[in-house]
Amino acid sequence: MADTIEFFTNPMSRGRIARWMLEEVGEPYETHILDYGTSMKAPDYLAVNPMGKVPALRHRGHIVTEGAAICAYLADAFPNAGLAPPLDERHDYYRWLFFAAGPVESAVVNKALGVEVPAERERTTGYGNLNTTINALVTAVNGKDYIAGNRFSAADVFVGSQIGWGLQFGSIEKRPEFVAYWARISDRDAYRRASEIDNALMPKDGT
Amino acid sequence: MADTIEFFTNPMSRGRIARWMLEEVGEPYETHILDYGTSMKAPDYLAVNPMGKVPALRHRGHIVTEGAAICAYLADAFPNAGLAPPLDERHDYYRWLFFAAGPVESAVVNKALGVEVPAERERTTGYGNLNTTINALVTAVNGKDYIAGNRFSAADVFVGSQIGWGLQFGSIEKRPEFVAYWARISDRDAYRRASEIDNALMPKDGT
Repeated sequence: MADTIEFFTNPMSRGRIARWMLEEVGEPYETHILDYGTSMKAPDYLAVNPMGKVPALRHRGHIVTEGAAICAYLADAFPNAGLAPPLDERHDYYRWLFFAAGPVESAVVNKALGVEVPAERERTTGYGNLNTTINALVTAVNGKDYIAGNRFSAADVFVGSQIGWGLQFGSIEKRPEFVAYWARISDRDAYRRASEIDNALMPKDGT
Repeated sequence: MADTIEFFTNPMSRGRIARWMLEEVGEPYETHILDYGTSMKAPDYLAVNPMGKVPALRHRGHIVTEGAAICAYLADAFPNAGLAPPLDERHDYYRWLFFAAGPVESAVVNKALGVEVPAERERTTGYGNLNTTINALVTAVNGKDYIAGNRFSAADVFVGSQIGWGLQFGSIEKRPEFVAYWARISDRDAYRRASEIDNALMPKDGT
């Protein structure tokens, strides 16, 4: 059925972000598990996502890729879940969704690759440098419960996941503001359900 | 007045993307020109954007930064301009806005920095590699007039600007699909008005 949500993922990927969002939305969905290097790069799946990356969704005959796009798409497609602010109050919502998907992602990828931006290139480099980017990210979560307005939204799922993963893997330093924010927003039934499902799908040792 | 749109920019920056979007929306706005290294890094402006980067908007007492976020915010805040698809048809809209702000931006920044992703790091690097990213971007514009649905939207302003700038500065190769798409979407009064305004603000030779 075209209305079924099909979810393409791997339990060891950012598909975890999309699954958390799906569990927040609460609609039924079908999961397709893809493996790195094999089914993720096979023609069938490249027709879904030419990047050969997960996650991706198919819904109503359309494809959505990119973790942040999946969060924003689902929030708007299922407004009853209350996961996006009203249209005229989306300043922080879009600001920090795009900040986490853009500068934070670039900065963290380059940290992992061992790339430092030379001072004379900071002006033309979108994220400037890692330290400034992380300092700016602190202002997204400091002194407020949620990223966008006074309630939990899809921006908390995505930006929160970037922060939570960063803390877990050491790519984002353990600032007290990040630790407190992550503890607050990950204390949710949908997050726990999503984690349990993906943890159960993880390959077992020796298999 | 809180309802005034204040626009922080520099004519030699991605502020040009935001100005194009502002001209598409057609509401009046006040422009503040900031200079690299001086007013852009001054405390007054760092209170607006702690990254010390342009563009930024202030509207109804709120700040929006990031070019893509400014496009998405304005489209939703001024629905009469018709620059965003209906809420249940935003698959391509969000997919390609976030793809251009994330993987494309990361890949192009790293090309400029001379960084190549080693094959064994492509799996954990969001954008994989430059070539795959550019091939995927072709599918955003190939065989259709606009990025999202059958009419021009904020996604064309942002994704189109990434493509147009990439073609101009050589950071994105001149694929025929990109050249045709850019020619089509830049042939608009709002784009010409925005370019003329920013061109007139460019520093003159020798001053």
